[in-house]
Amino acid sequence: MNEFELIARLTKSLPANKSVVSGAGDDCAILDLGMPDILILFKTDAIVEGAHFTKETPPEKIGRKALARCLSDIAAMAGTPTAALVTIALPENFDTDFISKIYDGMNALARKHGVAIVGGETTTNPGRILISIALLGTVPRGKQILRSGAKTGDAIFVTGELGGSLSEKHLDFEPRLGEARWLSEHFSIHAMIDLSDGLAGDLPHILKAGGVGAEILKSAVPVSRAAKLRAKGGSSAKPPFAAALTDGEDFELLFTVAGQDAVKLLDAWKKQFPKLKLSCIGKIVTGEGILIRDKIGSHKLNAHGYVHFA
Amino acid sequence: MNEFELIARLTKSLPANKSVVSGAGDDCAILDLGMPDILILFKTDAIVEGAHFTKETPPEKIGRKALARCLSDIAAMAGTPTAALVTIALPENFDTDFISKIYDGMNALARKHGVAIVGGETTTNPGRILISIALLGTVPRGKQILRSGAKTGDAIFVTGELGGSLSEKHLDFEPRLGEARWLSEHFSIHAMIDLSDGLAGDLPHILKAGGVGAEILKSAVPVSRAAKLRAKGGSSAKPPFAAALTDGEDFELLFTVAGQDAVKLLDAWKKQFPKLKLSCIGKIVTGEGILIRDKIGSHKLNAHGYVHFA
Repeated sequence: MNEFELIARLTKSLPANKSVVSGAGDDCAILDLGMPDILILFKTDAIVEGAHFTKETPPEKIGRKALARCLSDIAAMAGTPTAALVTIALPENFDTDFISKIYDGMNALARKHGVAIVGGETTTNPGRILISIALLGTVPRGKQILRSGAKTGDAIFVTGELGGSLSEKHLDFEPRLGEARWLSEHFSIHAMIDLSDGLAGDLPHILKAGGVGAEILKSAVPVSRAAKLRAKGGSSAKPPFAAALTDGEDFELLFTVAGQDAVKLLDAWKKQFPKLKLSCIGKIVTGEGILIRDKIGSHKLNAHGYVHFA
Repeated sequence: MNEFELIARLTKSLPANKSVVSGAGDDCAILDLGMPDILILFKTDAIVEGAHFTKETPPEKIGRKALARCLSDIAAMAGTPTAALVTIALPENFDTDFISKIYDGMNALARKHGVAIVGGETTTNPGRILISIALLGTVPRGKQILRSGAKTGDAIFVTGELGGSLSEKHLDFEPRLGEARWLSEHFSIHAMIDLSDGLAGDLPHILKAGGVGAEILKSAVPVSRAAKLRAKGGSSAKPPFAAALTDGEDFELLFTVAGQDAVKLLDAWKKQFPKLKLSCIGKIVTGEGILIRDKIGSHKLNAHGYVHFA
């Protein structure tokens, strides 16, 4: 049983109540606590030594990353983060300066985005550091963007560039909070997610939630310089396009909008965010799964993100 | 540097914003999101294999305990829990049935208290299971009860019985949610905390926050049957009164109320909660620290919870 099968089993019949607008299965949970104009966003995310960072990672960047991942999930709902709690599980002989620097990195990013850190706890975890962030945010009622909602004919957009993030970007990425709010305020965004498991891993969440498929134009996918550089790194390196599809931790926004809004959105984006690339990479189609179209033809992307190149 | 010193260092200058009513340092954080009648409570708590449960603990009780500890913190603010997120960090070769049963125990307690479980995540943690719960709740504005607020002359009350909880109660305790709300609705409770580190560990939080001391009447402290039984368990066992002072994980409510309200409160409590003992164990005095009074005289409790018996 893999992670997704386990989650499916565990989330099959979770307790609910009348506050729940949207529970497990989106980037954040959405709660209605009775405020006329506001819904609450609620999210947790954990990073673990050995999986998400190493003993060699600068501690400020560990703390920054722990919070940034959660902020990216708030962005994916077009929300605004409010307050975080920090759980840090520590081996017995922890270095207090190292821990303080983890907080320094986290606090700096929190201040940048106006997020309060309102407590948390330290606990024990022999062998490795684990940091779990719980984050509360808000979104204007009706302005939240779910993973579901993609419609046949929608244009598919992605911010920034994809692939190779584990070289460096996974420690330095900017959560797209302002960009997502701007999108929600100015356009009817049908579906949105942040890319944590790669385009090939995360686009299927939008497709399954909407009961639709996607056709991706290979030449339109923005491949990062890091992915291209890594491709030159020897026999174990992925081809750049495969890296753009399957590398994790890009933390860019992937969203869909009605085809007729696509050009207007691109034009407005360039004026609003001239420094951040926005790419229309394909369209939503009937059916299921992802078709990759290139000069020669189209190829079905298989379930594990592996693509048969023409 | 111990846990409390580390927390003091880390929480010295945390980022804040206008939503923060009360940040790190109480049982829950309190946030004001602009609702006229309601404040938000926000809490996380983690349990770790080897520290809070073992491989032999029935999995349903592990899940129950993980959530119950957080619910107890909501109770300590006189709040009502709304929704939880569950982070579960797993070794590689986890037993899916064991994990499902952890959720069964958690879900049953959530349903009992009307709490929605709205997601979370699974992540990796080689060596041991770690479960972190993030919990959102609400409290009527003005009805929240903080750790601060104890005044000289206050009566000190504790629910239930203390000590020996690690025999069994730490897996089965009832978070005192209804009792705390009733207290807040019917009396002016000055200060409240839930007992996770024992009376000798947690009463000082109330005393420091209020700038006061306490005099505890030894004969009034309700010592549990479990503590008395364990005291007979050989040379390493604690005397029952020491166990009642220093054993952890009682998860009873400790609170203070003006001396003139004490008798009225005790009478009303007996009618409202006839099955749950409530004990007046002493009073708030000027000065600092805890004095234990018995037939012979009074003795200062030292900082580590160790008491010199007369």
